[in-house]
Amino acid sequence: METKRVLRHLRGLFTPDPNEPWRTDRIEGAAVALQGGRIAWIGAERDLPSEWTGAEVIDGQGRWATPGFVDPHTHLVFGGDRSQEFNRRLHGVSYAQLAAEGGGIRETVRATRQATVEELVAVGEERLQKLTRKGVVHLEAKTGYGLELEAESRLLEAYAILKSQGWSLDVTLMPAHDLPQEFADHADEYIRLVADQWQPELVRRFPGVARFVDVFVEKGVFTVEQGRRIIESGKALGLTPRLHADEFVHTGGAELAAEVGAASADHLMFCSDEGMKAMAQAGVTPILLPGTTLFLGMRDFAPARRMIEAGCRVALASDFNPGSCACLDPLLILRLGCLQLRMTFEEAFTAMTLHAARSLGHDDLGHLHPGAQARIALWDVNHPLELVYWMGESYEPRMVK
Amino acid sequence: METKRVLRHLRGLFTPDPNEPWRTDRIEGAAVALQGGRIAWIGAERDLPSEWTGAEVIDGQGRWATPGFVDPHTHLVFGGDRSQEFNRRLHGVSYAQLAAEGGGIRETVRATRQATVEELVAVGEERLQKLTRKGVVHLEAKTGYGLELEAESRLLEAYAILKSQGWSLDVTLMPAHDLPQEFADHADEYIRLVADQWQPELVRRFPGVARFVDVFVEKGVFTVEQGRRIIESGKALGLTPRLHADEFVHTGGAELAAEVGAASADHLMFCSDEGMKAMAQAGVTPILLPGTTLFLGMRDFAPARRMIEAGCRVALASDFNPGSCACLDPLLILRLGCLQLRMTFEEAFTAMTLHAARSLGHDDLGHLHPGAQARIALWDVNHPLELVYWMGESYEPRMVK
Repeated sequence: METKRVLRHLRGLFTPDPNEPWRTDRIEGAAVALQGGRIAWIGAERDLPSEWTGAEVIDGQGRWATPGFVDPHTHLVFGGDRSQEFNRRLHGVSYAQLAAEGGGIRETVRATRQATVEELVAVGEERLQKLTRKGVVHLEAKTGYGLELEAESRLLEAYAILKSQGWSLDVTLMPAHDLPQEFADHADEYIRLVADQWQPELVRRFPGVARFVDVFVEKGVFTVEQGRRIIESGKALGLTPRLHADEFVHTGGAELAAEVGAASADHLMFCSDEGMKAMAQAGVTPILLPGTTLFLGMRDFAPARRMIEAGCRVALASDFNPGSCACLDPLLILRLGCLQLRMTFEEAFTAMTLHAARSLGHDDLGHLHPGAQARIALWDVNHPLELVYWMGESYEPRMVK
Repeated sequence: METKRVLRHLRGLFTPDPNEPWRTDRIEGAAVALQGGRIAWIGAERDLPSEWTGAEVIDGQGRWATPGFVDPHTHLVFGGDRSQEFNRRLHGVSYAQLAAEGGGIRETVRATRQATVEELVAVGEERLQKLTRKGVVHLEAKTGYGLELEAESRLLEAYAILKSQGWSLDVTLMPAHDLPQEFADHADEYIRLVADQWQPELVRRFPGVARFVDVFVEKGVFTVEQGRRIIESGKALGLTPRLHADEFVHTGGAELAAEVGAASADHLMFCSDEGMKAMAQAGVTPILLPGTTLFLGMRDFAPARRMIEAGCRVALASDFNPGSCACLDPLLILRLGCLQLRMTFEEAFTAMTLHAARSLGHDDLGHLHPGAQARIALWDVNHPLELVYWMGESYEPRMVK
């Protein structure tokens, strides 16, 4: 029998309810009973069942307890950074010009291809430590800056090592993140290669490491047909699809996600009403990435409210990557969810915990109801609302496991 | 003769040039010579004049040196907060409804009126400490949540105490921040009272504490005529005008600022082309507040680029206040300046240092050229650009004075 512990002296507890899409519970003066790394009981401290009264006490120090954040869309590991290019863009240099000079994603691909597995693991660790300090307890991480078999393989190996070190992450295979320079004007050929050879080979080399497959379906990147081919290859390998969809124009990515039973469709700034309905019906999680909209200087944030009204369980994510969102701060994403996607605090928080975890297939993450994994963030605030309201504060929670 | 000191082992130095509106200097491997609390020399370390070679060394630890930030528009001291109301707004409750229930600014006015001078000083200190940790070395702070003589007087007294404690701030008198409930439908009467009795009385009670006078000229608040009356009263008392102008609709606030020789016109989301030209000609600093636009969930950021093209020396500020921008983070303002106001990194940095200081009449702040006050921020980055690029990082500089 594992040690019984009780988290006491909390100011309160705030958690999404896993039984109702958008319901949250708020308990003032709460206590949390823990056993075997899981939540056993939550409620008001005065109602603590007698079997827990003698348990080891963890002092909540008058803080608010919430589930830690889950980040369901990151490009965690890549080589180099793009800060110099970033300012050239602010100076008015276009993406097309940067690309013509070999910049943009090609710069990151070059740096990633040159990096050793050890170097990739090192940047991954550093970024995971930052996210952990800010309250992220689990995340999704994609390959996709290699765009050649051996570089994609090194990325996957780096993720395998990070997982074996105990980092809590789900890995997504994404060699079809962009068309590499070597295949310019030969997209179909690249897609065939990835679908028929690379994806099977990568899964063979690192069995069980990747759980998902992703592809960038967008005007100027890959078509719906090409996306379908990548997804079918991934599904045959036992991977669940996720999709980069409808980011800059409506391409029908959300509809495709519903058709293939994807776990999520991500970005969706230009999602159609039909796409929303299709996602709601098929149980696809729309994952919105407002940090990217801000970072790119765009003003068309994704239509979160319409998606919620259409019955979708919207999730939020960082989209951490070097070109369009160099952001490892979950609180900024939460704030943008409220301020620019017009979600209520309760909705945005649920989107960054329960629905994010659900899109990754984890029923026991993203909430604090009995049965959930004990990954509890303790915030030094008068009320969780302050996490958004004090817009410039860089709160770092104390974590209880 | 005061001790000579030299800041060495810097990775580099980045500073606006006080002699050219938008020029910046970037020196790799820089050194800074300091004497009597001021910059005596800057340049490449290898060019350090021989008279400084024996001086006391401050180790720059391979960091980048920049001037500290100057924040030229804050409502630093007020009672209470409005986080609960904030979420009701996210839930769709309108400002009008909140106001009808006695919420909105009236809630802050109530809490501020109830606060003692000691309480006001305490919240001021806490906020100044936060800003200082984030690299702000000087700021402007307004009264205006008292809206009655004695409460405005306590705010001014609190600022006088903070100044006497050594905090570096310029105080602005602003009893005409809003129309208090007691004067509903009697705006002219309130303006007469403030202009003819309160402002003179406040200056008499705390001579030399306030340097500026401000008034909120906006549809539904005060008219251009009422604003002019407040400004004339302030000027007669030796105060320099600043103006809240053109925030929600075009009311001609920028034009008024130019007419009365104001130091700044602030907000300006709906500034006209004529207003921009008038400000450029009269040397009025437009102070833009992008945090407020974000916090209010608006998408019409101020037309910074057009103002720069019109010849204005644009500054950026936090607008820290409980209702429309509860933000004490200069880096978020810098980032929004680049990402949403479309300023280059060099422009946005100049706007938060040199031009901000200039709007407050300080030639020796906001840059690191010889003669400037030694208030140097040392950033642990590869290049100052990273302060914006790594959008989620909460960098805190080491300060050298």
